[in-house]
Amino acid sequence: MTVTYTLEVSKAKFWGFPKLLARWKGSIYRLIYREMLVFLIAYYALMLIYRVVLDEDSRKKFEAFALYCREMSSTVMITFVLGFYVTLVMGRWWQQYMNIPWPDRISMEISAYVHGTDERGRMIRRSMARYLNLLSLFTFQNTSTVIKRRFPTMEHLVDAGLMTPEEKIELDRTSTANGEWWLPAHWFTQLAVMARKEGRIHDDFHLKTLIDDLMAYRGMCGMIWSYDWISVPLVYTQVVTIAVYTFFVAALFGSQFLFGIEETSSLSVNYYCPLFTIFQFFFFVGWLKVAESMICPFGEDDDDFDVNWIIDRNIIVAYQIVDTLHKRVPILSRDAFWD
Amino acid sequence: MTVTYTLEVSKAKFWGFPKLLARWKGSIYRLIYREMLVFLIAYYALMLIYRVVLDEDSRKKFEAFALYCREMSSTVMITFVLGFYVTLVMGRWWQQYMNIPWPDRISMEISAYVHGTDERGRMIRRSMARYLNLLSLFTFQNTSTVIKRRFPTMEHLVDAGLMTPEEKIELDRTSTANGEWWLPAHWFTQLAVMARKEGRIHDDFHLKTLIDDLMAYRGMCGMIWSYDWISVPLVYTQVVTIAVYTFFVAALFGSQFLFGIEETSSLSVNYYCPLFTIFQFFFFVGWLKVAESMICPFGEDDDDFDVNWIIDRNIIVAYQIVDTLHKRVPILSRDAFWD
Amino acid sequence: MTVTYTLEVSKAKFWGFPKLLARWKGSIYRLIYREMLVFLIAYYALMLIYRVVLDEDSRKKFEAFALYCREMSSTVMITFVLGFYVTLVMGRWWQQYMNIPWPDRISMEISAYVHGTDERGRMIRRSMARYLNLLSLFTFQNTSTVIKRRFPTMEHLVDAGLMTPEEKIELDRTSTANGEWWLPAHWFTQLAVMARKEGRIHDDFHLKTLIDDLMAYRGMCGMIWSYDWISVPLVYTQVVTIAVYTFFVAALFGSQFLFGIEETSSLSVNYYCPLFTIFQFFFFVGWLKVAESMICPFGEDDDDFDVNWIIDRNIIVAYQIVDTLHKRVPILSRDAFWD
Amino acid sequence: MTVTYTLEVSKAKFWGFPKLLARWKGSIYRLIYREMLVFLIAYYALMLIYRVVLDEDSRKKFEAFALYCREMSSTVMITFVLGFYVTLVMGRWWQQYMNIPWPDRISMEISAYVHGTDERGRMIRRSMARYLNLLSLFTFQNTSTVIKRRFPTMEHLVDAGLMTPEEKIELDRTSTANGEWWLPAHWFTQLAVMARKEGRIHDDFHLKTLIDDLMAYRGMCGMIWSYDWISVPLVYTQVVTIAVYTFFVAALFGSQFLFGIEETSSLSVNYYCPLFTIFQFFFFVGWLKVAESMICPFGEDDDDFDVNWIIDRNIIVAYQIVDTLHKRVPILSRDAFWD
Amino acid sequence: MTVTYTLEVSKAKFWGFPKLLARWKGSIYRLIYREMLVFLIAYYALMLIYRVVLDEDSRKKFEAFALYCREMSSTVMITFVLGFYVTLVMGRWWQQYMNIPWPDRISMEISAYVHGTDERGRMIRRSMARYLNLLSLFTFQNTSTVIKRRFPTMEHLVDAGLMTPEEKIELDRTSTANGEWWLPAHWFTQLAVMARKEGRIHDDFHLKTLIDDLMAYRGMCGMIWSYDWISVPLVYTQVVTIAVYTFFVAALFGSQFLFGIEETSSLSVNYYCPLFTIFQFFFFVGWLKVAESMICPFGEDDDDFDVNWIIDRNIIVAYQIVDTLHKRVPILSRDAFWD
Repeated sequence: MTVTYTLEVSKAKFWGFPKLLARWKGSIYRLIYREMLVFLIAYYALMLIYRVVLDEDSRKKFEAFALYCREMSSTVMITFVLGFYVTLVMGRWWQQYMNIPWPDRISMEISAYVHGTDERGRMIRRSMARYLNLLSLFTFQNTSTVIKRRFPTMEHLVDAGLMTPEEKIELDRTSTANGEWWLPAHWFTQLAVMARKEGRIHDDFHLKTLIDDLMAYRGMCGMIWSYDWISVPLVYTQVVTIAVYTFFVAALFGSQFLFGIEETSSLSVNYYCPLFTIFQFFFFVGWLKVAESMICPFGEDDDDFDVNWIIDRNIIVAYQIVDTLHKRVPILSRDAFWD
Repeated sequence: MTVTYTLEVSKAKFWGFPKLLARWKGSIYRLIYREMLVFLIAYYALMLIYRVVLDEDSRKKFEAFALYCREMSSTVMITFVLGFYVTLVMGRWWQQYMNIPWPDRISMEISAYVHGTDERGRMIRRSMARYLNLLSLFTFQNTSTVIKRRFPTMEHLVDAGLMTPEEKIELDRTSTANGEWWLPAHWFTQLAVMARKEGRIHDDFHLKTLIDDLMAYRGMCGMIWSYDWISVPLVYTQVVTIAVYTFFVAALFGSQFLFGIEETSSLSVNYYCPLFTIFQFFFFVGWLKVAESMICPFGEDDDDFDVNWIIDRNIIVAYQIVDTLHKRVPILSRDAFWD
Repeated sequence: MTVTYTLEVSKAKFWGFPKLLARWKGSIYRLIYREMLVFLIAYYALMLIYRVVLDEDSRKKFEAFALYCREMSSTVMITFVLGFYVTLVMGRWWQQYMNIPWPDRISMEISAYVHGTDERGRMIRRSMARYLNLLSLFTFQNTSTVIKRRFPTMEHLVDAGLMTPEEKIELDRTSTANGEWWLPAHWFTQLAVMARKEGRIHDDFHLKTLIDDLMAYRGMCGMIWSYDWISVPLVYTQVVTIAVYTFFVAALFGSQFLFGIEETSSLSVNYYCPLFTIFQFFFFVGWLKVAESMICPFGEDDDDFDVNWIIDRNIIVAYQIVDTLHKRVPILSRDAFWD
Repeated sequence: MTVTYTLEVSKAKFWGFPKLLARWKGSIYRLIYREMLVFLIAYYALMLIYRVVLDEDSRKKFEAFALYCREMSSTVMITFVLGFYVTLVMGRWWQQYMNIPWPDRISMEISAYVHGTDERGRMIRRSMARYLNLLSLFTFQNTSTVIKRRFPTMEHLVDAGLMTPEEKIELDRTSTANGEWWLPAHWFTQLAVMARKEGRIHDDFHLKTLIDDLMAYRGMCGMIWSYDWISVPLVYTQVVTIAVYTFFVAALFGSQFLFGIEETSSLSVNYYCPLFTIFQFFFFVGWLKVAESMICPFGEDDDDFDVNWIIDRNIIVAYQIVDTLHKRVPILSRDAFWD
Repeated sequence: MTVTYTLEVSKAKFWGFPKLLARWKGSIYRLIYREMLVFLIAYYALMLIYRVVLDEDSRKKFEAFALYCREMSSTVMITFVLGFYVTLVMGRWWQQYMNIPWPDRISMEISAYVHGTDERGRMIRRSMARYLNLLSLFTFQNTSTVIKRRFPTMEHLVDAGLMTPEEKIELDRTSTANGEWWLPAHWFTQLAVMARKEGRIHDDFHLKTLIDDLMAYRGMCGMIWSYDWISVPLVYTQVVTIAVYTFFVAALFGSQFLFGIEETSSLSVNYYCPLFTIFQFFFFVGWLKVAESMICPFGEDDDDFDVNWIIDRNIIVAYQIVDTLHKRVPILSRDAFWD
């Protein structure tokens, strides 16, 4: 459920980006309001304890500890590590988008190079298109929580008409311990060779084109697997998480208004509400949440890629191109600028 | 309406970059003068309130709050996050430029590989060129506010002579719920296959070249769609916007001249005008506006790519290459350095 | 033994990243607990010496030195250099993953282009597949401690059935001083030429495809060698290591509670435990360990790529594709969406 | 007039980089000495006014203003934005170098694939080579101040023998409002098709190779145009320029020795000369000048690419390869390591 | 003499990176011990002058100056500019490694596509291999101090048997003012065309493959030339060098123990030895030396690529592949996993 807003700010004008702050879907508020609540509750609980419960002596100790916490709040370090980390995660996020396999290209090539309008011809073309979609379905079944829920087993794919029972049988016969998601690619290849032998593909050349582009398609599916298999090293994520959360645990104490230390004459804003800390919370936890919501882009976050829509669209469009639109061109005519 | 200035500073000399400060079109002043005005009005309004309206007691509180605001003005954090964010946005901006599809390459190949100077030959070549342009028109119709306004509907394209009525009919027959912008690519492919069958393309090889390059062209259109569809995650934009604007809301208070605190003897510059804050405003809001004006590069900002010009140029040049200039080479002659 | 956790945080929700902190495998705790222990032992040993052993005069000197150490603890510098260094190492780490050669693509092409179901045909296809795997085995034998231990010599490869005795003989005959890991690539090429001559490959075109893709495969093995041969310049690693470790040697002194200087009235937390320094240790040493665990990704760290699994999987899958599944396609049938 | 110095520091030894400081050509001194002079003159003028002209009261105000200026001199911000900006400009600078089109590759292919040693054969090959060079000449005529001065009009190209009068005529006939710099590419393509028809190119395959590589060559010219057309957004350049220059305008005041504030007892160095500020000037303005001298790399700066030399070299080498050296190979003989 | 150490730290364990600090070859100590010595001598000389030679009055001035120097020691700026600069230099360093041309790929293709086991056939293949190596030799002769010393003139190449006298003659005949290093590429091309005409290459297709890959090989040599020709802009190197060295010139004064200012009671460590400054020296000068040792990677630094070994290896391997191993494949047999 991608959040698209670019056209809204297509012209940089007064009130451009700030206008975006009023959004809820895909917004920072939606992402961090729970953390914010917990933080504020903890903050005010601590305030109550400090101001009401503690005796003079414990207060002193509390204040000493709070002061100590204030010292350790260096933001430079966190800013930096977040900068590097988010850049890394966003790089992977975009790479994953770039590796979503779209069947348009190969479908058009199938439509161009695999001839024959008889039933067998149509079946070959449609099967090829289906293998393309199966390849990406097998991929997303294991890497996207959305698709996993929609098609938990291979049976579901057969029921949805995306795999024929014959294909299911063949799949079962070759299943190994190492995964067989690449099988539709092999079927496609062998089917193309068969079509070449039957003369439906006119030239070895076109056969090569089809297989080369299929291999690129398979490679993209492989990349999706890879990004799922090889996460950002856990250590890195932990380092960043510890840095950010430790900062705010320290801030729970450090941002309290300390009677013993601060001038009580001109009561600080801090007395009631740690405005500045709340802002920092927005900033740092928000930035971390940017990473969190993009580390797995095939999930259900507001900003995740809409895999369900993609799958549906691809199935329809692939069939359209290889079958319905096969051999259909608008009637040629002189255009408006003819001589 | 791209702002080109490179040649003006082609030689790094005294007064090189500073000279550019005198420009208005595409300048930082034009981008931020409205924000600046609002900021200054708010600043002086607050100053009036503080100096004239408030009584002694309220002033004390105001000063306490202002001091608090001063503390929270850490620029390191904003500098950083802006640096990372602007780098990200500029990367996308340039990638979008790189993916603007130009028909020159395929047009020259059409002119080279699709033979026949009879009317049908010309019609085939011209249709192919038109499909190229239609593909990018369909793309920009949805991703550029400029083109959207110029051609709001398909009818407008027919009226402008960019699509024949026959093509409009065919388009309507295949329209689906999932968009059919890729249709001209399919037409091109099928037309090429037809031309091969008629012998106008001499070799399967050349057919492959045409289709391969068309697919690359289609891929570029697809990228334009992608950059439109997948914006920079909203959360990131919000985090940056909040960081910058919060900073200046705080500065409204923090940069006031505080009678209770600052030495009144040697009246500070600050007394009349927050010079330093204005400079920071220029810098930070200016930097943010760099991002804002580039996040949608097919709009109407001074720095946006001139899609209208590109479209017009491409239509003319494509027809020229595939038709007017077909088979035209200068007469061969001995050159000046012959033996 | 890759640590995969992406799907667990596929939805950015409350308690997302923090949840990951509870993991042990591949975690920061596992990576740094030894260093942490040594640091704490040294810290408390020093504390004992300072508080118990030293006389008044030595204490003074100790305190002077400790204060000096405090001054030099600038974190900006370390944060930065770590940021740049880790980014560099992670770039190489991912590039190495991207260059792991998978035989799927070429296997499918062998299955498609090398015909003949007789024994010789099968032997040719299986040999080609074996050469692919040998190429990567020779590579990992020298670049991965895991594979080196599994197959210390060429004999081990013969024993495991991954190389035939005939190939071992040929290998011995051509061994030179400069390494001959590329030899299987040459065998593959010559075998392909032979198969073309025998007419088992139908077209020079397909021969080219096989050899081109093999060369890409060989290039990936070459890259693995290169990343092993050309380490991150030692100087860089040393600079970073010195920066981080010096910081903590200084912290051993600097983070002691100094009686002569600090207020003894309200006993600081520091009195018992240098909380803040421990956090910094987590952060900086943890970040450095990120680099350390990724600088050689074919080793035995929790986060290293599982080369053993990859090798096993590739051998099985390659044989499957070129032999067992050769010519096998599911029976064509009308799909669920057929008209 | 590229400044090459790498080999001089090929060995990192004592006095390596510092040695480079003694250079004048392409040096930082040459780039900023004018700015430095102006800065120093202004500085000493202000000093005179402050010390001699002003009365006690004005001095006080001057000092207040100077103190205010000192406060606002945060270098972190400038360091950062310069870092990001220079990285951006250097990326473009190198990309432009990478897109300088060299005709060697296509020339060798012309020499290999276009046969015929008769006059017409030679004329075809030489024309093809000339079209390559024309393509880059038309490009640099508009993007390089150096070439623009050397060949202000098309007539100059004819006079220099780089274009035949016949080509000039053809060019004039097709000139449009949208530029026709791509015309030589079209001529090349059509000439290649003609040569294929005459049988001078033996295979459609070789025709494709020539046209494909020409298209890549044309693409590189297109990129040169693009980098000229799409400058770094003016806003960005302005933001950086304002940041740096404002800093030094503030420094004019802030780095004055202030009698009223600073201890007059031990006269500071500052009394005579703002050493530190001068160093900062070197550093920041120098860094900005790095960007300024690279933003248009086809100009006349010491560090700009030597387009004139490139053009001359390319014309000679292209003719040599396609004509003089056509069919010339050294006599084959047994080499030194034969058996 | 590349320094390889990755396998040594393949497992991130206690004492991993620190262990590397004990190395001398390619180490930071070896790179900076001379600078360090000079710095320390200067430091202690200054100390002597300050403590022994100067009278009370000069001491005061010295102290004033030293204090001034302390103020200007901002490390943030240097840390940053070094970070950006080193990243830039390392990018170029790795790109240069990636462009080292290895003849393996084309050699294998020659062995596969150029048939004929008679003397002429062998001569053609061996000449092609030699031209590949000549191309890289001509390149490194001008870009690597190591190769320049080994083969100062063309005669040396003939003497070493790497060029035949016939080739030397041909080379002399075509030598121009613009360099003729690309000549072997032309010879290769023409020889390939000749072999095609003689029928030793069976298909135009294979001719294209050879020439295409040769062009890629030539392109890599061209890149090596480019990196040599177009250095990192001198200005940038100067800015960084000035920043680092000025810092330490200032530190010579600033890190002195100042009697007039610092507490003499508890004698600081600084009294004898500027520990902290020495550490900074290690860090900053070490980091700069990283850049210095990598700016020309074909030199004689410990970390430079071992061009001599590469050249020797390539000559032997190329001859092996095209000649000795031509047509040699292990005898086919059933593998261990057969059925």
